[in-house]
Amino acid sequence: MKRIVAVLGGGNGGHTLAADLSLAGHEVRLFEMEKFKGNMHSVFETRKIECVGEVLSGVADISLVTSSIEEAIEGAEVILVAVPAFAHKGYAELLAEKVNSNQLVVLLPGTLGSLEFVNTWKELNANKDVVIAESDTLPYATRLEGPGKVRVNVKILVQIGVFPATKTDWAENILKDILNVRMVSNVLEAGLSSMNPIDHPPGTILNAGRIERSNGDFYIYEEGMTPSVIRVMEQLDNERIAIGSKFELSLMTIGDLLHTSGYGPKGDTWEVLNGSRSLTPIKGPSNLNSRYLTEDIPFGLKTYASIATYLGIKTPVMDSLITLATILVNEDLEDQGRTIEDLGINGMSVSEIKEYVTTGQILIAK
Amino acid sequence: MKRIVAVLGGGNGGHTLAADLSLAGHEVRLFEMEKFKGNMHSVFETRKIECVGEVLSGVADISLVTSSIEEAIEGAEVILVAVPAFAHKGYAELLAEKVNSNQLVVLLPGTLGSLEFVNTWKELNANKDVVIAESDTLPYATRLEGPGKVRVNVKILVQIGVFPATKTDWAENILKDILNVRMVSNVLEAGLSSMNPIDHPPGTILNAGRIERSNGDFYIYEEGMTPSVIRVMEQLDNERIAIGSKFELSLMTIGDLLHTSGYGPKGDTWEVLNGSRSLTPIKGPSNLNSRYLTEDIPFGLKTYASIATYLGIKTPVMDSLITLATILVNEDLEDQGRTIEDLGINGMSVSEIKEYVTTGQILIAK
Repeated sequence: MKRIVAVLGGGNGGHTLAADLSLAGHEVRLFEMEKFKGNMHSVFETRKIECVGEVLSGVADISLVTSSIEEAIEGAEVILVAVPAFAHKGYAELLAEKVNSNQLVVLLPGTLGSLEFVNTWKELNANKDVVIAESDTLPYATRLEGPGKVRVNVKILVQIGVFPATKTDWAENILKDILNVRMVSNVLEAGLSSMNPIDHPPGTILNAGRIERSNGDFYIYEEGMTPSVIRVMEQLDNERIAIGSKFELSLMTIGDLLHTSGYGPKGDTWEVLNGSRSLTPIKGPSNLNSRYLTEDIPFGLKTYASIATYLGIKTPVMDSLITLATILVNEDLEDQGRTIEDLGINGMSVSEIKEYVTTGQILIAK
Repeated sequence: MKRIVAVLGGGNGGHTLAADLSLAGHEVRLFEMEKFKGNMHSVFETRKIECVGEVLSGVADISLVTSSIEEAIEGAEVILVAVPAFAHKGYAELLAEKVNSNQLVVLLPGTLGSLEFVNTWKELNANKDVVIAESDTLPYATRLEGPGKVRVNVKILVQIGVFPATKTDWAENILKDILNVRMVSNVLEAGLSSMNPIDHPPGTILNAGRIERSNGDFYIYEEGMTPSVIRVMEQLDNERIAIGSKFELSLMTIGDLLHTSGYGPKGDTWEVLNGSRSLTPIKGPSNLNSRYLTEDIPFGLKTYASIATYLGIKTPVMDSLITLATILVNEDLEDQGRTIEDLGINGMSVSEIKEYVTTGQILIAK
């Protein structure tokens, strides 16, 4: 079924979503903030995005390219938010009192950002009944090759959790028309299944000297994912999975997630990563002050660690990577990051949190 | 003054000490355990060690090469123990009831091993009045090029602490004849000034992928000591210095230690390491299961961290490197390492520890 879709964010993800969905015949409105418009000036002018590569090719005509949030979301059935996690709060504020309960908001990916959206709306006393979903990863392995031009390497199957979880079927009915989706039990399962915070920080930190010395002329998956790096990653992953267990979630391992999503072959972590056609050719990060640390630490591992501490789970590997990343980035990551306070679940018991993500209702028994 | 010197240990350090001191005219007895004799069979046969390189050259005639500890130390004025830290306890047991109070035992280097020696002797009720010293580093930048052949790149000025510290002048009087020494206030100052635990683990861990990928074809100082690696090293160093402060020691920074010892130019940490003629050409470690981690974590950072925990000092960087190294080494480092129990200072207050290292007397006020 053809859908009216608002795509928010003009980076890799936003460009690719807008192009893919337009080529598939959906009505797409692509939004970028006024202040970032310069980066994609040509798209604002032509409303065209060129797709190159085997997975997706052709020139997509976007219905609307706008920096007016009202224009973008008016009448949209689904609003896809494809922005870095540190921009989530700003987008939650931007959408407050504008989005309504007939519309589905989806964070691609979320890393528990859906809970920050809900919490922000609660603080602003807005959008109480809006359904918000989040995925574990971006729906494409894609790179922006220039303004209005994307290369899509893989179309990814994304795991989607919905808040409140009682709206999962309703959300699936919309999303299956526009994305490859696999619905999971709730936003905790989706948010705790983000792959970037598990594979980026060990790969970056344990190759820090190499990345810096080569100025990023370094294939992180091809050269950097050695057996010892993978061992650290797997122990980190075990800590993530232990957090999920507290919520009675049987989270997939990073290896299974990568395989299920379409990144690589079925195998152990080393095999999936080293055998991934889409990841192997990826270079970078270009330096240590990169989103591999500046996003995946404060809006990934620190969020997980914050929940773990709250639940009394020890996360020595997570803590070690956070400590070292904070020094490697060489700017103040110390006070940055999404914590359980931002998620609005501080003070709740485990069962209250589970109830909250299922029903959307806060029922704290004090 | 010519001295009678026993050199214990047939590795890089032992070979070089035996050769250098023999060439300088001292009477040298070189000891290696029966089980390791095979590694230096030719030296046992010929009693000759060839020195190549600019700093030291010529063929040294060693007075005695033996696997009898009694033969080695009989009548020796000074006993130089040049073995890895994990062998310290074994050597303490070997020397127990054989060494006497006229002899000076020196660990090159110690990393607080002198306190483990004393504690081991106490446990065995042996050698109560023997003076034992330790250095912060090996007295040479040296490499064994084969059995009986060493290349010496730099002769190092070593910082020496003596237990009990009241015997410092007596020990200096002997040591100045055989080594370049700078006496420090006590064994805590020498043991907390070890350079290896500060520069090896960050350099190895933050280049782990590179080391493993290249199978050690990697110049750790030339390629690996990038600005971000050095930032981690400096924060690690601050934690070491904070431990010293508790004992009212003004420890030198790793950069100043490296410079003072003769490793590199005067400058900040990056400048000393990157400007070091002796370190720059060093390759390795050849893999992650190397002494850069297997020795410098359990007998370096874990020892320091054990003291820090006892004193209530936070050491997040040290803890992070220990956690990651334990995974990278891929064998059980978990239960290994020298702790305050091994040092025999558990249960003492800071002032009692200071008193102990000064006088050799335990005066615990309970």
